[in-house]
Amino acid sequence: MKNENIVWHNHAVDKSIRAYMKKQRPCLLWFTGLSGSGKSTIAGAVESMLAERLQHTYLMDGDNVRHRLCGDLGFSEEDRIENIRRVGEVAHLMVDAGLIVLTAFISPFKSNREMVRQMLSGGEFIEVHIDTPIDVCETRDPKGLYKKARAGEIKDFTGIDSPYEAPDAAEICIKNDNISIQDAAQQVIDYLDQHGYLKPVKEGSDAIIG
Amino acid sequence: MKNENIVWHNHAVDKSIRAYMKKQRPCLLWFTGLSGSGKSTIAGAVESMLAERLQHTYLMDGDNVRHRLCGDLGFSEEDRIENIRRVGEVAHLMVDAGLIVLTAFISPFKSNREMVRQMLSGGEFIEVHIDTPIDVCETRDPKGLYKKARAGEIKDFTGIDSPYEAPDAAEICIKNDNISIQDAAQQVIDYLDQHGYLKPVKEGSDAIIG
Repeated sequence: MKNENIVWHNHAVDKSIRAYMKKQRPCLLWFTGLSGSGKSTIAGAVESMLAERLQHTYLMDGDNVRHRLCGDLGFSEEDRIENIRRVGEVAHLMVDAGLIVLTAFISPFKSNREMVRQMLSGGEFIEVHIDTPIDVCETRDPKGLYKKARAGEIKDFTGIDSPYEAPDAAEICIKNDNISIQDAAQQVIDYLDQHGYLKPVKEGSDAIIG
Repeated sequence: MKNENIVWHNHAVDKSIRAYMKKQRPCLLWFTGLSGSGKSTIAGAVESMLAERLQHTYLMDGDNVRHRLCGDLGFSEEDRIENIRRVGEVAHLMVDAGLIVLTAFISPFKSNREMVRQMLSGGEFIEVHIDTPIDVCETRDPKGLYKKARAGEIKDFTGIDSPYEAPDAAEICIKNDNISIQDAAQQVIDYLDQHGYLKPVKEGSDAIIG
C-alpha cells in the first residue's frame, strides 16, 4: 500500500494563520456516551452558543456522516473502527483548518477514542463524556433502539449486549441526569473559556502548532 | 449496508450562518491536471492570496491526504475512485462548514470529477483545469515520476500509459505554459471576485444553500 513516490507538501498558509484569522485555538470536542445520552443535543447546543460568540465550528455526528463519507461501511466491529478512524482523520483536517470541531459518536471503546486522540496534537483532543445512566437513556429511547435491542432485533447494541467503556479521565464529564441542556452545554463553554480556546493565539505560536 | 435506524439530525447552526460569519460564499476549487502541471503550486498561491484577503480556506492534495484519511488505499482503479470519493465527501463537509476548499489531484477521469460535482450544490463546484502540455510536465518532472513511468517502473501513469480526460467545460482553464504562478493564481481570484464568492452573502440566502 505504501508508495515512496509520495512526498509531503508544505503550503504557505498553515494552521497557525488559519486559527489566528478565526481568533480561536482549534480543537476537537469528542462527545462520547450511550445512545440516548444526549450527545448530539448537547453538542448542538454548544455549537449554537459558540456561534453566538462568532467562533468558527463544525459538528459531525454518526447519523449524518454515516450516509456519505462512511456510506460504504456497515456495523461490523471492523467497519465501526474504520468509521471512527475516518471521522478522526476528517476532524484532524478540520482542526488543521482552524475550526473548533464537535463530534457526537457513541464510540464505546477506549482504544478507538485513544486512536483519535493520538491523531491530534497536545491539547487539541478534548474528550467530553456524557454520563447518563442507562436506565435514563432507555426510558428516553428517542429512536426506539433500546426496545429493538431488548427484543433482539439489533445485535451488539452498546449497553445491552456490547460494553460501553467509560473514560477514566475525560477532560469534561457531564452528569446528564437532572440537568438542562443549556447547563450541560455551559460546562463545555466554561472549559473552553478557562483553557484559552476562545481567544486569539499568537500567529505561529507553539500553543497552536501543538 | 443500509440501516433504517439512521435518522438525519438538523442542527441549529447551518451552512448559511457559518458562511455569513466568514464573509464569503463557500465553494470547492477542484484543480485537475497532469502530474507536474502545477496544480498544487498554483492552488497554494491561490490560498495565500485568499489569506491576505482574510478569506477562510483549506487546501487538500493527493500527497498529504494519501498518508492519513486514504492511508488504507492503494493505486488500483477501484482505490483511486474511492480516494476521490472520500476527498469529495470531506470537501463537501468543509464547504458545509463555510470554507473555500481547494483540492489538487490529477483526477484524470471525467466520471470521477462529475461524481464530486454532484456531491455539491449548484455553483459550489468550480473545476480548475491546469492545462499544461505533457512535454512541459515531463521536462519539469519535479518528482522524477515521468522518468520512472517511461522506464516502466510505474504502471498506469496518467499521460503515459493511462489517459487524461481533459474537462470540456471547466469553470476556469489555465494555460500553464508560459505564465507565472502569480498570474495563474490571479485568474482564479478574478473568477471568485467576479462571481461573488469573496463577499458576504445574506444569512439564510438561497445563494448559499444552493
